[in-house]
This record gives sequence, structure tokens and C-alpha cells, in this order.
Amino acid sequence: MVKVVLDCFGGDNSPGANVEAAVKALENNKELYIILTGDEANLKAELENKKFDENRLEIIHAPEIIGCDEKPTDAIRQKKNSSMIAAIDRLRTDDTVAGMVSVGSTGALIAAATLRVGRLEGVMRPAFCPVLPTMNGGVIGICDSGATVDCSAEMMHQFAIMGSVYMESAFGVKNPRVGLLNVGAEEEKGDKLRRELYPVLKAEKNINFTGNMEGRDLLSGKFDLVVCDAFSGNVLVKSTEGACLEMLKMLKKNIYSNWKYKLGAALQKKMFTHIKDFMNYQNYGGSVMLGTRKTVVKGHGSSNAKAIQVCIEQVCRAENAKMNEKISTLLCNKE
Amino acid sequence: MVKVVLDCFGGDNSPGANVEAAVKALENNKELYIILTGDEANLKAELENKKFDENRLEIIHAPEIIGCDEKPTDAIRQKKNSSMIAAIDRLRTDDTVAGMVSVGSTGALIAAATLRVGRLEGVMRPAFCPVLPTMNGGVIGICDSGATVDCSAEMMHQFAIMGSVYMESAFGVKNPRVGLLNVGAEEEKGDKLRRELYPVLKAEKNINFTGNMEGRDLLSGKFDLVVCDAFSGNVLVKSTEGACLEMLKMLKKNIYSNWKYKLGAALQKKMFTHIKDFMNYQNYGGSVMLGTRKTVVKGHGSSNAKAIQVCIEQVCRAENAKMNEKISTLLCNKE
Repeated sequence: MVKVVLDCFGGDNSPGANVEAAVKALENNKELYIILTGDEANLKAELENKKFDENRLEIIHAPEIIGCDEKPTDAIRQKKNSSMIAAIDRLRTDDTVAGMVSVGSTGALIAAATLRVGRLEGVMRPAFCPVLPTMNGGVIGICDSGATVDCSAEMMHQFAIMGSVYMESAFGVKNPRVGLLNVGAEEEKGDKLRRELYPVLKAEKNINFTGNMEGRDLLSGKFDLVVCDAFSGNVLVKSTEGACLEMLKMLKKNIYSNWKYKLGAALQKKMFTHIKDFMNYQNYGGSVMLGTRKTVVKGHGSSNAKAIQVCIEQVCRAENAKMNEKISTLLCNKE
Repeated sequence: MVKVVLDCFGGDNSPGANVEAAVKALENNKELYIILTGDEANLKAELENKKFDENRLEIIHAPEIIGCDEKPTDAIRQKKNSSMIAAIDRLRTDDTVAGMVSVGSTGALIAAATLRVGRLEGVMRPAFCPVLPTMNGGVIGICDSGATVDCSAEMMHQFAIMGSVYMESAFGVKNPRVGLLNVGAEEEKGDKLRRELYPVLKAEKNINFTGNMEGRDLLSGKFDLVVCDAFSGNVLVKSTEGACLEMLKMLKKNIYSNWKYKLGAALQKKMFTHIKDFMNYQNYGGSVMLGTRKTVVKGHGSSNAKAIQVCIEQVCRAENAKMNEKISTLLCNKE
């Protein structure tokens, strides 16, 4: 039995999408047990008329909600009775629980997971690892992209190992190709941190290090994982997403400027649906905290039920693949 | 008279495009004097049958060429008789020369400009500042994006001032809106460096600081200049460019997969030309080295004559606006 806590509030479609996702996930995975956190009356109302195995669903009443505009450290201190903190607390105190999923505030979740769930043995700092689709139909993990902005080479060495185990455990990527985010392809490129880290990664036998990766190669499909500090990782992800969205906006604006272009677009309607679908990272699962004692998955705030279900199943896959045990073994043997 | 040295080799269309650009620029700017560097016989052959004022054109014979795949520091030491180093040397030794333009190796040019041309009084480190078009029809400068990967807050404080003077001098942007590249909008976000720098920029009266900028906002038109260390600046620029190119590639691939999509694209042909033209950063001028004693402009390696001409005129505008004097005055008064 894999037990997962699901924070049911804080997303654009919460709690409806969260509850629907839980019911679907329970139906698809007979070995799954889900604990919902949030306002109980609200959750019960959402569950009404839905069929599910009552022996594998539990509710923790926690009526407060952490908003995305709240300062993370204040929120997790002050809103002890929020759906997110209730989920984190259950995760922390119940050894039988494998992980949790939330679509709430990213900052609060990273802070709460780091401060309250604790680290796996051997881990210096946790890392936050989203995945993006690549142009050849694969995915790439970006590790770290949110947890540790001030990094040492040692920490990033660990990110490379944790990220590799994750890409293999959760996405079945064999021998993931690891790139180091840098300003050029050559070994001697980069700042002090990167020049210190490069030979360390090159010598590391537990990863498949394939050299430096430049920002322009993120979506190319040449890498399965990119190692970075959370500062440049955040820049990498946000500027890539931003540029894709601006391109689509520009296309749309241009298409609407002229009837001929509109007619052309009408012929391409299916194509644009396909492209949007391809770019929709909800289809690829949430971002995972690596290095915490339990698996914490953050889904996008705008996630629908399908996307949240993918996040729940991500926890199951990581658990079944014994991801955290593998990470801890590899990192403890290093010391 | 504004004197500009033009390195005539090292680009994809060199020396033809370079020579053509020089002739056009001389024709358009009667106060311009150009010094071409490169293989003399080759340059003379390109000049044959072209009309130009011989009193305002000079050739320095320097037959070697620095390739883009050469290690910058080795190249500038070993290829003393290359078109790029000859240009740098003329710039260094001739006080009447205002600046230079090159479309050769970016790494070699940054290294040579930093090591040989020297810094303006008051400048701690030079910065490399490209510009990109924004979606509302403006441009944004990225400072630093190539010269100084290991930065202090003091250096980046200077980048903000130099970049502001540049955007005003070369692009006529009044009171440029300066953003600090960071992982979130709030003041307390970021790594140690950014948290130290934010209050310094906020207190700086000589710039129009408008807060943090996230990677996704680069093309939005909300900022005229973004301040960053060269490491994250490089990630920002390359990932934005990479994502735009990958999007276009994906569109193309999809369009060619089906006759209906192809037909649609035929109706949109003019639109795609317009979009490509808009995205073509050659139209917006080259990247400039800020903080060096003379103005050094780097055009894209694939520049055509028109793009190189824009770079030459960029030097003229910076000179006429007394950009370097302004930078030096502002930075010296700080100390």
C-alpha cells in the first residue's frame, strides 16, 4: 500500500479538481491510499455522488488556506491549521506515508518541506526539480530550480546524483544524460563555481555526465537532466517558458490582424491544439522536491484533475522505484 | 569627425558584407572616417568598383583571422597580426579613434577589449550588453551578459548605471526602466548577491530602478534594461533565443506534416516574414562593451551589410551622445 497526502486547496481549481483527481487515482491504483487535507465539509460535498473505496480515503480537517501572495515563512508559521501544513505534518509524523502532492504556493511548500519534513540521510540541501517537454518528445529535469539559491559545488554534485535517480525512477530514463548549465560548451567555461564543479561531475561514476549545457539547448532533447543552482535554474525555466508564451501571443496577435491569416489559422486549428497540448507541462507531472525524507510533488497552480492525478501517480512511481532509498545510499556512500 | 575601426574578417559574410557596410555608412554619415583591418589585397578587391570618399577610408593590412573555435586568450596572444587584434591595437593607441566594430569571435573580442583597451576611469569591470526586441516594439538591454561572470554587488551597481546611460545614448530611451534579474518580484527574493544589491539600486538616484525582473518578463516590454551577472545574463539571453528558435522549428515541422497546414501557412507567408524580421536582432544593432575606454561593438557572426552598418552607426551615436564621458563622470563621482 502506498499512502499519499493530498493538499486539496490553494490551486485555481481547488478543491474540485483535487478531489476528482484523488477518486480517479484510487480507481486506477488499487494499492493506493489517499489522505485529503482541507475544509472537511467542503471536501465531503465534493465527494458526494462519487464512487470510491472508503477504506482507502481519509480526510484531515484543516480549514485555513495559504495564498500564493503570502510570505512563505510567515504563512507556514501562522497558518498551522492550513491544508498545506496539515499535509506536511502528517507526512512528517506518519512513517507509513510515502509522499504528498500540493498545487498551492510553491514558496510555502518548498519552505515547509525543507524546514519540517527534514532531509534524507547524506543530503546537504534539498533541490526542487521541475520537468519540461523537449522537442524530440522526451522530458528534461531541471535540478535545482527553486530550493537552494546559494550553492556550493558539493551541493550541486549531489543535485546531479539525486536528479539522475529521479529521472530514472519517475520517468524510466535509462542512464540519463546530465548537463551542467554553463555559458559555453568548453570545460574551462563559467564562473568559479562551475569551473570547480565540472571536474567533479566528470569524475562521478554514478551519473552519465555529458558536459556543459547552454541555455539554448534546454528543449533540444540532447540532455535528460540539467544541473544548476536554483538562481540560474529559475532564470532558465522562466525565460524559456516566457519566450514560448510570448511567441504564441505574438502569433495570435498577428493572425488576428488580417482575414487571410485568420483563414490560414482556421486550416491549422488542429495543429495549434496539438502544439498547445505538447507544451502543456501539466501532462508531464509536477515538480518534485529531491533530498527530503519523503517525496513532495508540487503541481502547477492551474492544474486540472488530470494533472493532479499525474502528480499523485508520480509519488507512487518514485516510491515503487525506491527512489529515496537509492538517493540516500548513493550519497551516504560518498561520505 | 568620428573615427571607427572596422574588423573586416571573422563573420559568415566577411569581408564582403563588412566592406559594403563601410561604404554605405560613409555615404550616409559625412562626419565618419573608417579604418578597415584585414588582408589588404582582399579588401582592395572588395572596394573595387565601389564609390566612396577616399579621404575618409583607410586600410590596415592584417592578414590573420581569429576563428570562433579558437580559445580567446590563446588567439589574442598568438594572432597579433589578425584583423581583430590590429583593430584593437589601433583603438588602443590612437586617441582620435572613437570605437570599433567586429563580427568575429565574441570571446576573443571581449577578452581583447578587456585586456588591451583598458577601462574608463571609475569602472571596476566592463560589461557586455546585447539588446533584444520586446513584444511592444521596443528594445531591452541585458547588462552584463558576457564579460564578468563572478560579480560583486558594487560591480553590478555600476552595470546598472552604465547600461542606463547606454540605453539613453544609443537608443534614445528616456529614463530607462531598470530591472534586477531575480527569482521573484519581492524585494527579499534571491541569493545573497541580489539581496545585497536590491537596496543599493533602490537608493541610486541616477537610475530609474523599477524592481526585480523575472526571466519570463524579458520580452514583455516592461523593462528597458535588466541588470545581471554575466552568468545568469548569458542563461537569460540564450534560453530566450533558444526557446524562440525551437518554437519556430516546431511550427515549421508541424506545418510540413499536412497539406492543410501547408495551405494555411501559404496564406500566412507575409506574416511569417514579418515575424522573422521582427525577431531578427541584426536590425537592432550589436552588443556593446560598456566601461571600456572606447566603444567596442560586437555584431552577430551572421551579420549582413545592413546589420554591420547599424553597428558602425551605433558607435557614432554613442560618441555623439558622449556616452563614455557620462559614464565616467557618474562613476567617478560615486567614489
